[in-house]
Amino acid sequence: MVVTERDKTLVLNPAWDAAGLITGIVTDVTSGELLMVAHLNAEALALTQSTGIAHFWSRSRSRIWKKGEESGNVMRVRDLRIDCDQDALWIIVEPAGPACHTGERSCFFRRVEGSTLIV
Amino acid sequence: MVVTERDKTLVLNPAWDAAGLITGIVTDVTSGELLMVAHLNAEALALTQSTGIAHFWSRSRSRIWKKGEESGNVMRVRDLRIDCDQDALWIIVEPAGPACHTGERSCFFRRVEGSTLIV
Repeated sequence: MVVTERDKTLVLNPAWDAAGLITGIVTDVTSGELLMVAHLNAEALALTQSTGIAHFWSRSRSRIWKKGEESGNVMRVRDLRIDCDQDALWIIVEPAGPACHTGERSCFFRRVEGSTLIV
Repeated sequence: MVVTERDKTLVLNPAWDAAGLITGIVTDVTSGELLMVAHLNAEALALTQSTGIAHFWSRSRSRIWKKGEESGNVMRVRDLRIDCDQDALWIIVEPAGPACHTGERSCFFRRVEGSTLIV
């Protein structure tokens, strides 16, 4: 694959998709565990950077979503990294509680074995 | 948020998006590092499961993409997990070499500090 300017630049230049979003991948700073995947628009990214608390764009509710706004399980941002083509953001956090709305610590609480899921 | 049937089921039932894709998050089984993010359609998921080697759907080339098919840096799948709403797959791999087409070990080789990226 060709290496582009966006792959090499030292200037943040997110490659927003047609809906104005990039993918956010959230991991736990202590355990390293993958906690959740959500999406950010420019406002969510700006809020995440200015407050140090993870914000997303809720596609189902079509509004800015401060993670933990209802549950109290906010996520303090410890590090932010971006991938080569700048369409995915790695958000390394200190979570105040479970990441998943099911109450599980991580949204990825099921292993895939063939067509079966194992908790 | 409401807990749905898809959140609880023990049957694999990916929530394909309008383009027939789910998001794949790839981490290194040894270091735990986030290596890359790519997308899978049903065929890529089936190939990943049947061969034990990570396959994706290349959106830029509109074809199945066996990661490492050109570079030799294939990824052996050690574990597969899926998130609550089944639109993201966590692929834990043993990589044969750098994940990124730039030659970096991880696509997330730049830290975000304000509007600056730091290698």
